[in-house]
Amino acid sequence: MSDGPSRRAPLEGVTVVSLEQAISAPLATRHLADLGARVIKVERPDGGDSTRHYDTAVNGEFSAHFVWLNHGKESAALNLRDPDDLTILIGLIGRADVLISNLAPGALERLGLGIDDLAAAHERLIVVDVSGYGKGGPLDDKRAYDLLVQSEGGACSITGEAGAPAKAGIPIADVGTAMYVYSTVLAALYDRERTGRGAVIEIAMLDVVAEYMGFALNQVIHTGTEPTPVGMGSPMIAPYGAYPTADGQTAVLGTTSDSEWRRLTTMIDRPDLAADERYSRNSLRVERRAEVDAVVGHWCAAHTLAQILAAADANGIGNARYNTVDDLVKHPQLAARDRWREVGTPTGDVPALRPPAVARSWPIRSGSVPGLGEHTDAIRAELSSAATQSEISGS
Amino acid sequence: MSDGPSRRAPLEGVTVVSLEQAISAPLATRHLADLGARVIKVERPDGGDSTRHYDTAVNGEFSAHFVWLNHGKESAALNLRDPDDLTILIGLIGRADVLISNLAPGALERLGLGIDDLAAAHERLIVVDVSGYGKGGPLDDKRAYDLLVQSEGGACSITGEAGAPAKAGIPIADVGTAMYVYSTVLAALYDRERTGRGAVIEIAMLDVVAEYMGFALNQVIHTGTEPTPVGMGSPMIAPYGAYPTADGQTAVLGTTSDSEWRRLTTMIDRPDLAADERYSRNSLRVERRAEVDAVVGHWCAAHTLAQILAAADANGIGNARYNTVDDLVKHPQLAARDRWREVGTPTGDVPALRPPAVARSWPIRSGSVPGLGEHTDAIRAELSSAATQSEISGS
Repeated sequence: MSDGPSRRAPLEGVTVVSLEQAISAPLATRHLADLGARVIKVERPDGGDSTRHYDTAVNGEFSAHFVWLNHGKESAALNLRDPDDLTILIGLIGRADVLISNLAPGALERLGLGIDDLAAAHERLIVVDVSGYGKGGPLDDKRAYDLLVQSEGGACSITGEAGAPAKAGIPIADVGTAMYVYSTVLAALYDRERTGRGAVIEIAMLDVVAEYMGFALNQVIHTGTEPTPVGMGSPMIAPYGAYPTADGQTAVLGTTSDSEWRRLTTMIDRPDLAADERYSRNSLRVERRAEVDAVVGHWCAAHTLAQILAAADANGIGNARYNTVDDLVKHPQLAARDRWREVGTPTGDVPALRPPAVARSWPIRSGSVPGLGEHTDAIRAELSSAATQSEISGS
Repeated sequence: MSDGPSRRAPLEGVTVVSLEQAISAPLATRHLADLGARVIKVERPDGGDSTRHYDTAVNGEFSAHFVWLNHGKESAALNLRDPDDLTILIGLIGRADVLISNLAPGALERLGLGIDDLAAAHERLIVVDVSGYGKGGPLDDKRAYDLLVQSEGGACSITGEAGAPAKAGIPIADVGTAMYVYSTVLAALYDRERTGRGAVIEIAMLDVVAEYMGFALNQVIHTGTEPTPVGMGSPMIAPYGAYPTADGQTAVLGTTSDSEWRRLTTMIDRPDLAADERYSRNSLRVERRAEVDAVVGHWCAAHTLAQILAAADANGIGNARYNTVDDLVKHPQLAARDRWREVGTPTGDVPALRPPAVARSWPIRSGSVPGLGEHTDAIRAELSSAATQSEISGS
C-alpha cells in the first residue's frame, strides 16, 4: 500500500541554499520546503528580499507577498561583499544539495561563484540560475519583472479586450518560472540518485512564457492569424464567457463541444438553435460570437445566478461563479476540504493554504515565516562547529 | 563536472500511461516525455483527445493546441468499455511507473480502476488523479474548464479593468495544474528511489489557482481590501504599465523600488519629482497612480519607442515591448538562443520550442505528434509478447 503514513517527507535530508528575491525562486523553494527540504534563504542584511517591504499587510510587519512565499525557510542575512560572510556562503554551498539564484544577471560571477566553477568543484551539486531572458541574445542583461516578461512574451496581447490589453493578475511569468525551477530541481535530484551527478540548470522567464503561449504560437505560425483577446471569453471557443444575471450578479458559462452547445439550447429554451446549421459547430459559433452571446445573455438577464447555475448543472453545462478574492478566502470548497492551515510568524500565526500537490503518504511541513537574518547566528555556529569537527577528524 | 554529456536522459526507462485530454495532463506528460520518459497516451477510438479537433490549423490535420502538447508521445486508441481493450490498459498499468488521469470525476472508479485499488495492487506505481475541485465539498462533480476555474478561483477579478474583468489569455488554471502534475510525479519518482514505494497524488485545479492567488488572499485576509485590476498595471506598484509612444507604439515600463522611481524622474526630465515627498514611496505613488501615469505618459507620448527603451536601459529602468504573438514567433532573443527545433507529425515536420528547463547535460527528446491510435497495434503486440514471455518463464 502506498497510502499509509510515510516515515519521512520526500525531501527530508535535502539542503537548498537560495540567493533569492521576489517571486520565482522563493515560490520554488517554498514548495521544496513544503516537501521537507531544508531551505536557507540568503538575504542582504540591509533590508533583505525586497518583497519584505512591498507593504505591511500582515500584522503590520510582513507583506502579503512575503508571507505567501517564505514560510518554512531559514533566513541567513549575509553581506556577500564582506569576505567573512562570503566564506559562510561558500561553506553553505559546500554542504548543500541544491543552489538556486535569481539575482540579477552576472551577480553570481561577480561573487566569484560562476555556475561552471561551482559545478566543477561540487560534482553532486544541483545549480539553478534564473534569468529574465537567458544568455546569448540582445536582451541578456535586461531587467525582467513579471509584467515586462508577460508583455515581451506576447501574453498581454491575448489578455483583456482588443485595444485594452491587460496583464494576467496572477504573475504568470514569475510563478511559471518558479514551477520550472521546482520541477527541474526534482528531476535533477532523481537523476542524481541514479547517476551520482548533479546538474547545471539555466532557466529564462521568457522561455517559460513562450512555452505557455504554445497554442497561440502554433496558430500564428500555421495560419498567420493573431488571436484577439475577448475579455472573459476565449478566442477559440463560443459560447464561453461571463453574463449579467437578473439579480445583478455575473454567471460564467462555458461549452467545449457541440453536444454541450445543444444541451445549452435546451437550458435556455431555444431548442430551435440546436437544429440551426449556422450554429452547429464551434468554429461557426466563434464566427457568430456576438449573436451567440446575445442569446445566452438574454436568458441569463432573466434568471438569477442561483437559477442559472442550478440549470447549468442539471443540463451538464460548464458553469462557475465570478468570484472576488474575498469569495476565494471564504470558498466553501476550500473549507470543506480542510485546505487551510496555520503557519507561524514572529508576530503570531497566520492562515496559509496547504500545498496544492502532495502524495497522501507524505507529511507536509508547516514552518514559520523567518524574520530577516533570524537564523544567521545559528548557521554561523553550525558551520563553525562543522569546521572544528573537520579539523578534529583531520579530514 | 556536471556539464558533460550525460549517458542518458533523466527519465529514460520510466513509463507513463496517461488517460488524458485537453491541457493539464497532456502538458505534464509532454514535459515527462521531454526528459526521456516513454508516454503512452490512451485515447478514445472515436475521435480521441478533444483538442485534436479544436481546429485544423497545423497542415489541415492537427489543432494548434494538440501539436503544442503532444509531441514525443505514443497514442493507444482503446475503447475502455470493451473488456479486451480494458485488459490492454490493465496490462499497460501493470508495467508502468506512473499512471495519470484527468478524466471526468469518477471515471477511473467506473472502470474498476479506483486509485486506492491500483495503489494496493502495485506498490511501486505512482498514481495521479486530476480533478477540477477535489473531493469532499459542494463542487466535487462540477465541470472544470480553464475559464471556469480561473473565475471560481478569483483570478479574473484581478485581471482586466475594474468593471471589465478578463481571464488570463494563457490558460493558467490548466498549465498551472500541469506543472503540479509534472513536479509531483518527479518528487514521487525521487521518493520511490529512496523508499521503494509509489504514491497516490490527487490534484485539484482550484487549489492550484488558489496557491497562485496567495498574495491577493493575504491582502484580503489581513487588510480586508480587494485588489482592483488595473489593466497592464499592478494594483500594488506604480508606475508600472503601458504607455503610448510618439510613433504609435506601446512602451511598457516598470519600477519596483523607490530608487528606480528616482532614476525614472531623471529619464523623463522631471528631477523635481525625485525630491517631492508626495511621490517618494511606492505606497504614495500607488495612491497617486493617475498623476504618476500622466507624467510618465506625457513623456512617452513625445518620444519614439526606440528612444524610450534605449533611455530606460541607460537609466536602469525596467522596460519591455508590448509584443503580439507574431512578435514572439519572430523574437530575436528566442532565435539568437536557438530555442526552436522541429518535431515530426504524420504530415511533416513543424516548429516547436525546446523545453524551458533542462540541465545542460541532459539530452532533449524531440519526438513526433502521434496520429490517433498510431501505436495501438504495436502496444497490443508488445503486451501479447510480454504475456507469452511470462508464460514461457512461468512467472
